[in-house]
Amino acid sequence: MERYDIIIIGTGPAGLSAAITAKIRNKKILLLGQKGSSDKVRKAHEIQNYLGLPAVSGENLQKAFLDHIAAMDIAITEDKVTLIYPMDNFFALQTARDNYEADAVIIATGVVSGKPYPGEEEFLGRGVSYCATCDAPLYKGKSVAILGFSPKEEAEADFMAEYAAHVAYYPMYKEDVKVKDGIEILRDKPLSITGAGFKADTLVTDAGERPYDGIFILRDAVSPKQLVPGLELDGPHIKVDRRMATNIPGCFACGDIAGTPYQYIKSAGEGNVAALSAVAYLDEKRRNA
Amino acid sequence: MERYDIIIIGTGPAGLSAAITAKIRNKKILLLGQKGSSDKVRKAHEIQNYLGLPAVSGENLQKAFLDHIAAMDIAITEDKVTLIYPMDNFFALQTARDNYEADAVIIATGVVSGKPYPGEEEFLGRGVSYCATCDAPLYKGKSVAILGFSPKEEAEADFMAEYAAHVAYYPMYKEDVKVKDGIEILRDKPLSITGAGFKADTLVTDAGERPYDGIFILRDAVSPKQLVPGLELDGPHIKVDRRMATNIPGCFACGDIAGTPYQYIKSAGEGNVAALSAVAYLDEKRRNA
Repeated sequence: MERYDIIIIGTGPAGLSAAITAKIRNKKILLLGQKGSSDKVRKAHEIQNYLGLPAVSGENLQKAFLDHIAAMDIAITEDKVTLIYPMDNFFALQTARDNYEADAVIIATGVVSGKPYPGEEEFLGRGVSYCATCDAPLYKGKSVAILGFSPKEEAEADFMAEYAAHVAYYPMYKEDVKVKDGIEILRDKPLSITGAGFKADTLVTDAGERPYDGIFILRDAVSPKQLVPGLELDGPHIKVDRRMATNIPGCFACGDIAGTPYQYIKSAGEGNVAALSAVAYLDEKRRNA
Repeated sequence: MERYDIIIIGTGPAGLSAAITAKIRNKKILLLGQKGSSDKVRKAHEIQNYLGLPAVSGENLQKAFLDHIAAMDIAITEDKVTLIYPMDNFFALQTARDNYEADAVIIATGVVSGKPYPGEEEFLGRGVSYCATCDAPLYKGKSVAILGFSPKEEAEADFMAEYAAHVAYYPMYKEDVKVKDGIEILRDKPLSITGAGFKADTLVTDAGERPYDGIFILRDAVSPKQLVPGLELDGPHIKVDRRMATNIPGCFACGDIAGTPYQYIKSAGEGNVAALSAVAYLDEKRRNA
């Protein structure tokens, strides 16, 4: 497996800024996230306080960011990280499509909106999953529920339908749903996840209890607590110091996930710091090797 | 005396970013520093990692910054702060030209290059001064030395010559010196400051000992230790937390003076955070008033 120096997760201002600085420092990087960069940036009306780009629309700011990484020959790999596992001397990353290894990771996934459902964390890995693409083959001939938090999760439902006998898709957004025929679309409001035994077996909604073999919760980002085992949090944020270092050596965080204020220029600044701290970590590691 | 909500000291990326965000939040601000913004920015060849402005020259980056504050109707007041004094419920600022009061201050002065001379801190206020304009009248008919760290200090030497009987100017830079006739220009290298009694009376240089009644050291910025009595430092930097708060309530710091890495985008991000923290501090203060 190809080993990267630094894997950067997230393509908002923090992730892009980190990627640029890491690339300038000649590190072998992988930038994982959405190609359209951050929806949050694109949808902003006007940003007045991104120093150097006065009164810029969210769309133009996003364009300036993406032009910058294109000019520096940095590619975005469209993939969603579901697990970052700290090994003895490196990190193993599991994504929807592949597995990767890196000496250092920078988490810039943005804040995860919404609290987990009651039962979600308890049953994670036991009937509850964050990655339909990863686990679909396990549900051949079975019945599954997919809670999709954005229209792009519809492709996951389509993929799941190739394996499962029954797929119920719960769109957690208002837009129209376009999924394959045969997928049941339910607009009930999920409330909790329960299970009689070791595994989750029921999605409780405001319309009643619905039994499933598997329940997939597809948010834009996995909550940091689930993403990295052992990562120290500070409320909904990852706890970092002034160097953007987390409690796990080699693991850095920046941008909204590292704390308030949620501001573009703050995120871009922190991405830069995280990248330079990761570079210093790699240098130190190689000196001691 | 006019009372400001927030006085921001420094016109590099940190100070300008702080000013923009504080202005957006409708605070009454005063931005003190050089009108040409930071020399350091202007002299940089090419900056590759200011996200959104790829491969920008220092000159163009500075222009983008200054255009931004001009578009937001933010003025720079050209003045050099020599002392920030935390009072019971506000800050009193002494500058070369005036005195100001503010409920909160943001220090974004950049790192002060060079260590103090032996004797400098010991004799500060007793024959050693950082402000020729402030103290010139005290040296009527006397002999003074002025150590100027940039050509703009030549005006201070000219002003001093209106009072002092003898002014020796030590340019600490390579450019030609243009000062009034009668001012002695010395290219000796200052080494230390000594005094036989309570006051400094001698500048020791590599050419020998030279007696003076007063010694003025005019750097681009006053070291933070001298600038704010009681301010907690971390080596050459001001100690701050993730909110850019110092140990003194209402006093924030950002940019290079708040620590490495010395990067434009990091400074701009920290300026934004410092401004929002100062705004939160003011809100809290008013709620409790």
